[in-house]
Amino acid sequence: MSSAIPRIAVDAMGSDLGPEEVVAGVRAALKEDRSAMEIIVVGNEEVLTPLVVKYSLMRDRRVKVYHAGEVIEMSEKPIQAIKTKKDASMLRAIEMVKIGMADATLSCGNTGALMAAGTLKLRPMNGIERPALGSIIPGKKKNFIMIDVGASPDPKPDSLLDNGILGANYARVALGVKNPRVGLLCNGTEDGKGNVLTQRAHKLFKENDLLLNYGGLLEGFNIFDGDFDVVVCDGFTGNVVLKSMEGAVVLLKDLIKEEVKRNFIRMLGMWIAKGTFKSLKKRLPVEKFAGAPLLGLNGLVVKAHGGSNRKQIAGALQIAIRCLRMDMNRRISEDIEKVRQVKAE
Amino acid sequence: MSSAIPRIAVDAMGSDLGPEEVVAGVRAALKEDRSAMEIIVVGNEEVLTPLVVKYSLMRDRRVKVYHAGEVIEMSEKPIQAIKTKKDASMLRAIEMVKIGMADATLSCGNTGALMAAGTLKLRPMNGIERPALGSIIPGKKKNFIMIDVGASPDPKPDSLLDNGILGANYARVALGVKNPRVGLLCNGTEDGKGNVLTQRAHKLFKENDLLLNYGGLLEGFNIFDGDFDVVVCDGFTGNVVLKSMEGAVVLLKDLIKEEVKRNFIRMLGMWIAKGTFKSLKKRLPVEKFAGAPLLGLNGLVVKAHGGSNRKQIAGALQIAIRCLRMDMNRRISEDIEKVRQVKAE
Repeated sequence: MSSAIPRIAVDAMGSDLGPEEVVAGVRAALKEDRSAMEIIVVGNEEVLTPLVVKYSLMRDRRVKVYHAGEVIEMSEKPIQAIKTKKDASMLRAIEMVKIGMADATLSCGNTGALMAAGTLKLRPMNGIERPALGSIIPGKKKNFIMIDVGASPDPKPDSLLDNGILGANYARVALGVKNPRVGLLCNGTEDGKGNVLTQRAHKLFKENDLLLNYGGLLEGFNIFDGDFDVVVCDGFTGNVVLKSMEGAVVLLKDLIKEEVKRNFIRMLGMWIAKGTFKSLKKRLPVEKFAGAPLLGLNGLVVKAHGGSNRKQIAGALQIAIRCLRMDMNRRISEDIEKVRQVKAE
Repeated sequence: MSSAIPRIAVDAMGSDLGPEEVVAGVRAALKEDRSAMEIIVVGNEEVLTPLVVKYSLMRDRRVKVYHAGEVIEMSEKPIQAIKTKKDASMLRAIEMVKIGMADATLSCGNTGALMAAGTLKLRPMNGIERPALGSIIPGKKKNFIMIDVGASPDPKPDSLLDNGILGANYARVALGVKNPRVGLLCNGTEDGKGNVLTQRAHKLFKENDLLLNYGGLLEGFNIFDGDFDVVVCDGFTGNVVLKSMEGAVVLLKDLIKEEVKRNFIRMLGMWIAKGTFKSLKKRLPVEKFAGAPLLGLNGLVVKAHGGSNRKQIAGALQIAIRCLRMDMNRRISEDIEKVRQVKAE
């Protein structure tokens, strides 16, 4: 699957901020990492060539432009879009992975279309029913992986076990944890808690605890405590939880800002204390976590937020490069093979 | 169900902070509200009588002590506990509602046991399959109700519609909103998003939009925007989301505190700006929202956090009193009756 030099096909057209931001992100990533790699910028050549010139990437041998004439818009229905727009930049980028022209795809485009096209064209690995989106979340003492944050809203219990294996491999690569501790997100930690799905998955995890370091159930309260490196859930719950937590943090930030602006004394105090918030930003480097790989496919697909800025694009590219350099997908398929053998016995 | 004077049976034994905190909470509530009511403090008389004396409630005619010899502990298995501990304070308090000695029960005890005992002894209203926990959540511009936050982890689509009706009635009573706008929490707002449960519930809501003001799907990002007065979800998702949001807010608070303590300048600045955080606390008066009614039963059961302090107990009591004074349960059963008629047609 992986060649010596990582090659990434970047869908440059799907971003909410337009192709320029994507090209700027590619440049930022290449500036930070001077090693050998290949970035294939996929999209309308007429639009992309001037941008590649503008960002001084014309002479960088690591960058190539590949033409694709169509774009899948955010508002389009996934299945319909991938059926009708055969020449869409997103599809072309994924096809490159399929035919071996690239090792990974990065896209900020329509999530549903990316998942559908990724699954359809690259197929899930042998033994995996559905892929899962893994996201790095900043915690109090250390970061952790939440998986699935939106790929499969109605998985079977077996898929949650797969998510544990996929997430553990991603934690090794993205967080550098040797033996990631996996937990199952639940509405309580006592036996008998959970919905039917988590109860069954909990049982499966306990039966397969030789294959991964399973730490049991965890509650939302404890998600940031650092006790778990991988938090497993279904794609519906993960998506709603991730977005709600973001909503809560934005609420708090907005309320603090509003209250500070109410009078001059508060503004003065906050100005004096501004180092606090600068350090806080450094401790929560969200732009580095903007890419979420769609794990469990024969080939790497990384999804970045639709509204990712150049820093976030660069962060997502670095995630993709890291996954390729550490040969994550080979490790995942080896782990999945072990599970299949255990189940077959 | 409701008499002219609200009578509340308070389970004084189930709190993590012990019965004294509950008695202190009763006193705080009575001090704030001087009108006619009756609070029956249920639990071990030998423990409670000295506390009632200590908090000068002996001569308050509104307070009575009722003896119950057993306590259901937090760690006990719900069904087993309610089967074996017939004289538990929680069960006695619920029985009082059943036989008409009280109009509502308040307990900080074992949630599972409270739900099981409430459902078993009071029974769901005609037309309701399972009760739901409704919680008030502070938002940016206004507060909203989230329902269900933990009673039914695996509801059917019909139950989510019921949650909408229960939540709308609770929003009228607790938030004073005349025509509450109801939304369904989902992993996206486009048609086709959601798991099977939310997709089916969304369809049901649209079919029954004459009965309630249904505003459609909403995402976690938008939960605090103030567009919805009632956010409907299943009890598993609601519980996990609520606790994760709390976890995120605590994380942010802890990180800010840590960063402030790093140097003197920051501490000085924050001291000057301290009014910000005082105002913030006033805008997010969490102690007032500590009680979550178990809605949809023939009788009112209010759950307070296990670790509620006296202010939170008083807040939960006020919620119970408000529900009784506004005859919420009668309104709910009228609404449920309308739905049943529509479904029968």
